[in-house]
Amino acid sequence: MKTSYFRPSIDEMSAYTPGEQPKVSNLVKINTNENPYPPAPGVFETIRKFNADRLRLYPQPTSDAVRKIIAELNNVEPSMVIAGNGSDDILNIAIRSFCAPDLPLACFTPSYSLYPVLAAMQQAPVLKISLNSDFSIPDDVLKQTTNANLLIIARPNAPTGNSFPIAQMQKIIKGFDGIVLVDEAYADFADDNCMALVKDFPNLIVSRTLSKSYALAGLRFGYAVASPSIINGMMKIRDSYNVDMLTQEVASAALLDQEYLSKTKETILKTRALLERELTSLGFKYIASQANFLFAMPPDRDGQRLFDALRADGIIVRYFPGEITGQYVRISVGSDVEIERLLQTAKRIYN
Amino acid sequence: MKTSYFRPSIDEMSAYTPGEQPKVSNLVKINTNENPYPPAPGVFETIRKFNADRLRLYPQPTSDAVRKIIAELNNVEPSMVIAGNGSDDILNIAIRSFCAPDLPLACFTPSYSLYPVLAAMQQAPVLKISLNSDFSIPDDVLKQTTNANLLIIARPNAPTGNSFPIAQMQKIIKGFDGIVLVDEAYADFADDNCMALVKDFPNLIVSRTLSKSYALAGLRFGYAVASPSIINGMMKIRDSYNVDMLTQEVASAALLDQEYLSKTKETILKTRALLERELTSLGFKYIASQANFLFAMPPDRDGQRLFDALRADGIIVRYFPGEITGQYVRISVGSDVEIERLLQTAKRIYN
Repeated sequence: MKTSYFRPSIDEMSAYTPGEQPKVSNLVKINTNENPYPPAPGVFETIRKFNADRLRLYPQPTSDAVRKIIAELNNVEPSMVIAGNGSDDILNIAIRSFCAPDLPLACFTPSYSLYPVLAAMQQAPVLKISLNSDFSIPDDVLKQTTNANLLIIARPNAPTGNSFPIAQMQKIIKGFDGIVLVDEAYADFADDNCMALVKDFPNLIVSRTLSKSYALAGLRFGYAVASPSIINGMMKIRDSYNVDMLTQEVASAALLDQEYLSKTKETILKTRALLERELTSLGFKYIASQANFLFAMPPDRDGQRLFDALRADGIIVRYFPGEITGQYVRISVGSDVEIERLLQTAKRIYN
Repeated sequence: MKTSYFRPSIDEMSAYTPGEQPKVSNLVKINTNENPYPPAPGVFETIRKFNADRLRLYPQPTSDAVRKIIAELNNVEPSMVIAGNGSDDILNIAIRSFCAPDLPLACFTPSYSLYPVLAAMQQAPVLKISLNSDFSIPDDVLKQTTNANLLIIARPNAPTGNSFPIAQMQKIIKGFDGIVLVDEAYADFADDNCMALVKDFPNLIVSRTLSKSYALAGLRFGYAVASPSIINGMMKIRDSYNVDMLTQEVASAALLDQEYLSKTKETILKTRALLERELTSLGFKYIASQANFLFAMPPDRDGQRLFDALRADGIIVRYFPGEITGQYVRISVGSDVEIERLLQTAKRIYN
């Protein structure tokens, strides 16, 4: 008998570690960029009115109703939309579609640490391109990614929160001989996005999630928009019934209330501005954020110390060890009350 | 620019075709083995009482609460359980774990046609072992599967509905130098199952779904039980939040009501017996079923003709083209009223 039946690459790889989901409930949890406000009223209503008897039947396999809504919102055809069980499902489908031992992934560092983990499952090499010290994209990015077949760009980037100029994105998408996936998990909080570029570039995929801006992290719904031929191929990889019946309907209800989305966004951006002001007065620096979190550097550049002090006070932020990232903590923009709690601890330490 | 950025195997493969989910609602839909009865009362209550505000947070990533319930039901440790977004997710994870271009999949024909599709995504060769003419497993199965790393056995088998002797299963699992995955999607309708064997065989995975017996096809929840080291490895492949918050809680409620499950099962088995009797009196033959469907051969052995005639009367069953399978149709055991409708059409044709 063999000692392991797993593919060697599975035995060798480490699993992705998601942000902590603590079981204690009286904590200020501002570590995984969840929304402090409830989902849209239509979400409550959809669940309340849902007749559970319908669950005995399979869901519509290709999520057609919600894809139609997404298409209308983004001014594309439904054939240009794929729905996923969270945008992690979308990322997984993309990496399975375009990466292999001879088809490398390119991505940036620091960025979302799930990308290299998904590539490892495919035994695909990963070209990790270091961002500049201000977390901008290096000018020679196309030279560094020549051999890659898929390039994933989180825009706004996580955990840093900054965005990249649209003109630079266009240049990269045009010059890259492969698929560019722009992960727009945080784009609803940003000044602009790449969705309109999908019509110009047949090698562009734009992915979105309802986890952050729509306050539906617990629901698992994400989607991608791309040219029909790209979507067709990705559809083959998708599980036949990857999005459950209730999720399709709840996602539809959330997407149909754009007014509520705007209102929530405005509130969060106000709190983010407050956080920026207060941290600045305490001697912090931060990366200009286009997202619902702030990558903030305390005066002593010791992210670990701040993380530990906050934790001792029942406040959970996220800390990313590393020479550069370790100088920061990532603070999700919670409610004003939650941010006030964080500022109290920060004041005690740095004032 | 390349003509396609997809991995060549993705361009070459065809997607799995799920059973038809018609949009017209006044049909008798007995084609995808859905349950004609509603899910357990606890399912209705869980959804009615669910506070949608909670959806703004991520779900518990590893589905711990429902895994604990599954472990207790099956008399194993929670570390021996993995939860999935439907058992398709479980099958996908298993094939990604154990199959590769040099690690073939073995499965039977006829059986669930998703298995070879999932293997194609991994560029894994597929050894298709023909079942005997009575759909039993051939005696030389171990000789035929020598080179495979994963062997999937649907037990009861689909679309045929028959099972395989436990003693034969033990012999296969013991003799096979690789992982045996027993897909028990229909085991709740059967006289016995392989769950107790997991403790004896470190190379055995048993998978289950809530789609059929628990009447929750629309929910997407499945699970697998295996030795902790197998589960550990499969956990790495799983999406970090593969089962959403509401699904975890609804699945728990359904699993906790074993009395309701038994009651539904008894009703379905009674209807199955009625269907068997009536079809026999019309000159049909059928494969002795351990599932909630019947693989039935009309007197003229023309499955297509029966399928078309039923469809013309608004009754949808499933037809599998092929020299052997084409002599049958697969009839899901619906309600007594639905089966009565089917029998009316059958009587008109064959009496």
